Amino acid sequence: MSKYAQMSSWEREEELKGLVDQYERVKSRGLKLNMSRGKPSSEQLDLSLPLFDLLRSTSTPAIYHASEIDDYRNYGGLNGIPKARELMAGIMDVPADNVMVLGNSSLNLMYDSIARAMTHGVMGEDAWMIQSARTKEPVKFICPVPGYDRHFAICEHFGIKMIAVQLNADGPDMNAVEALVKDESVKGIWCVPKYANPTGIVYSQAVVKRLAALRPAAADFRNYWDNAYAVHDFVLEDQQPKLYSIKLACEQASNNDIWYQFSSTSKITFPGAGIAAVAASKANLADIASKMAFQTIGPDKLNQLRHVLFFANDTLGQADVMQVSAGQADVVWRSAGQTAVAQVSAGQADVMQVSAQQMLANVRAHMQRHAKIVAPKFAMVQEVLQKELGSLGIGEFTTPKGGYFISFTGIPKTAKRIVQLAKEAGVVLTDAGATYPYADDPTDANIRIAPTYPSIDELRSATELFALCVRIASLEVMNG
Amino acid sequence: MSKYAQMSSWEREEELKGLVDQYERVKSRGLKLNMSRGKPSSEQLDLSLPLFDLLRSTSTPAIYHASEIDDYRNYGGLNGIPKARELMAGIMDVPADNVMVLGNSSLNLMYDSIARAMTHGVMGEDAWMIQSARTKEPVKFICPVPGYDRHFAICEHFGIKMIAVQLNADGPDMNAVEALVKDESVKGIWCVPKYANPTGIVYSQAVVKRLAALRPAAADFRNYWDNAYAVHDFVLEDQQPKLYSIKLACEQASNNDIWYQFSSTSKITFPGAGIAAVAASKANLADIASKMAFQTIGPDKLNQLRHVLFFANDTLGQADVMQVSAGQADVVWRSAGQTAVAQVSAGQADVMQVSAQQMLANVRAHMQRHAKIVAPKFAMVQEVLQKELGSLGIGEFTTPKGGYFISFTGIPKTAKRIVQLAKEAGVVLTDAGATYPYADDPTDANIRIAPTYPSIDELRSATELFALCVRIASLEVMNG
Repeated sequence: MSKYAQMSSWEREEELKGLVDQYERVKSRGLKLNMSRGKPSSEQLDLSLPLFDLLRSTSTPAIYHASEIDDYRNYGGLNGIPKARELMAGIMDVPADNVMVLGNSSLNLMYDSIARAMTHGVMGEDAWMIQSARTKEPVKFICPVPGYDRHFAICEHFGIKMIAVQLNADGPDMNAVEALVKDESVKGIWCVPKYANPTGIVYSQAVVKRLAALRPAAADFRNYWDNAYAVHDFVLEDQQPKLYSIKLACEQASNNDIWYQFSSTSKITFPGAGIAAVAASKANLADIASKMAFQTIGPDKLNQLRHVLFFANDTLGQADVMQVSAGQADVVWRSAGQTAVAQVSAGQADVMQVSAQQMLANVRAHMQRHAKIVAPKFAMVQEVLQKELGSLGIGEFTTPKGGYFISFTGIPKTAKRIVQLAKEAGVVLTDAGATYPYADDPTDANIRIAPTYPSIDELRSATELFALCVRIASLEVMNG
Repeated sequence: MSKYAQMSSWEREEELKGLVDQYERVKSRGLKLNMSRGKPSSEQLDLSLPLFDLLRSTSTPAIYHASEIDDYRNYGGLNGIPKARELMAGIMDVPADNVMVLGNSSLNLMYDSIARAMTHGVMGEDAWMIQSARTKEPVKFICPVPGYDRHFAICEHFGIKMIAVQLNADGPDMNAVEALVKDESVKGIWCVPKYANPTGIVYSQAVVKRLAALRPAAADFRNYWDNAYAVHDFVLEDQQPKLYSIKLACEQASNNDIWYQFSSTSKITFPGAGIAAVAASKANLADIASKMAFQTIGPDKLNQLRHVLFFANDTLGQADVMQVSAGQADVVWRSAGQTAVAQVSAGQADVMQVSAQQMLANVRAHMQRHAKIVAPKFAMVQEVLQKELGSLGIGEFTTPKGGYFISFTGIPKTAKRIVQLAKEAGVVLTDAGATYPYADDPTDANIRIAPTYPSIDELRSATELFALCVRIASLEVMNG
């Protein structure tokens, strides 16, 4: 038995009184912190500043002229530029031919995929709105929980009925998933297969293979594989969990068309000013392109080129980044970055000859620099939570090896109260319930913690307050 | 009577034989030219090269930090950055508060507007797909013809029934438009109000006011005002036709919400790597944003910042650009551009204090540089057409003061044949019929000519061939 549960209700009343006094003192300090969203910190963004400098008007020969007729400054190129496709293919663990690079946001690509399916259907099947009208029931999606609120929001926006299944330590409850796909109105499942938002788990090979081997009743069922944290590891390469390739698994299961994969460089370079990609079978890509041709003439190829130049330059990867102290990251890139700028401006032909493997290695080196900044924040939050809550039996938290979140699960009926208490004391957390479809966490217990954006000092204050709120809310519930 | 019609059929047969011989000789030259799309030439793109250089990691203070909490490198800012809103507001002749800057393509914004209306409706009205299902008839759009093929393609993609109305020299046939909007299933009209694609006409103030004063049966009717060529004049400012403000006209008619305006810098800076914008009443923008929030977290604010820096620097406007010969444009910006780079890198505070008026003046100066390159191409095409066809009575062509197209109208039943003949001799034109809904030009007479992309020499060859094809096709028809 744990401490709070072992106490008498009188002891708990006393404890609560003391904590409330403490809370009021913290509140009077007037904190103003935000741990609600998975945003990179300013220091992380500094790591990608050479992106500003690499594409120059003075490069000779002009690096934006891929060929005599192919000018990246002009219209066209719906699939993205070849080298950017290779770059994103490396991150997504698929061949470049299976990738379209477009837009600045994988969320946008996911939304557009759903929007197109609603009005025009998937690979020749009827539009979902037509199917719904015919069957008089909504299209449905499987939503592993806890999960990503923006996935759920897209479904809700389009009237897609969400069915929650448990997300276990190795991935979704596959027995439940296999049963659900027998319903022809079930059209998809949302998966964040690596460092899942918010629990940080990585899908096991066995789960990936079962997902790939699904035989859904609906021919237009797809696995919406949101690989947002594909290379967002905190740990060195030999300790990194490996995600089994969804493409490979689907091919092994003779289920070539059952997956869409999404990713972006939002949390690699700049959120909103990065590049996004969708990967899928060639049949799916042809289907997507045939419809997308009505929507756009092509993506921002110059920003794709900037990203290629950034990750083509292995000088940026040469510094032993794990040895660089946080705060010194700018020094690393300032020297390496200037070398790279000089190379690109000189128009070195080999910049565009860089191999996909080398770009991926450079991405990984870059992500180690992120890790250097991010990992200590996660460790600090976990340390504070362990110290403040570890012995009380009123909550558990995750210790992921990458990604952007710590998932906290308290005792039932506390999450909303915790978020409210924190907010009143100046710390904004992700809304309680946000990790469940319809914002409905049936036990009101899960809270997503996003430690990356605040400074380490702010984060300590916020986490201490959070722990205090957890204790107060738990005692309130236990005391009835 | 004109020459060909005056000839005897025997004379026409002789003429045709001679022309066919000539055509075969041209064909044997193996031309390979493309006049099909409105693409800027490489020389035009060179004008915007300083965009590559202005945003630097070394600017001090960092120009991307709009405020302590507002970092353009991070998530957020669905409306776009304030200065970019001012920039696009100037181009679109509306206040900045009425503008959202997002994405790289106004086509994409138009498509998304239609897609949202189909699935979610406009400002509280039922989704168009729901309305269609209820009334058992498709939603309809009014399409002034000849018009822009990509507008028509969006409608066709969504099953929106298109109703053609004549585009006159002062705008759409308003009697027809006023009659059509009495039908509640009519939800919109496509307008390219300045330098219309393809005829190059500019809507008169009277037409703008009648459009603004429409009282459609449908509350969710909107004027889709595609102001793609808002500042794309060939002539000096005092000779430029003035487009009456759609916003002002609608307000004067107490019809505040009846317009959406779209524009982009695709043909100002870089197609695909420019910035796009939608302008509308605040109620419309709130409606758009409330739905768009499911689709994206925000636009590429860094590219918006690049555009602001580019148009903030009046050094780029100081050269007397109309005195610069074509081909020397790069010299102009190289000196002016380097001054601007130095200013921005020094982080001059006044860069971001630039007035909206100054940015617009700089845009206009920039567009004069475009005109210097583009106008001679239009003049050359017109000169060749006048020389080759002027006295034959077999076609008319437009002489716009701006925009991207010359519209050619031949005698009935010739357009498809002309395009086919040109293609077989190596010159790709826009498909005949493309300027009409469903690619159905009832008289098969209109062809859109896009003179901007080829070099002037290529253009001469292509236009001479075009004229030859017109003569052949016309004689074939006249001879029966």
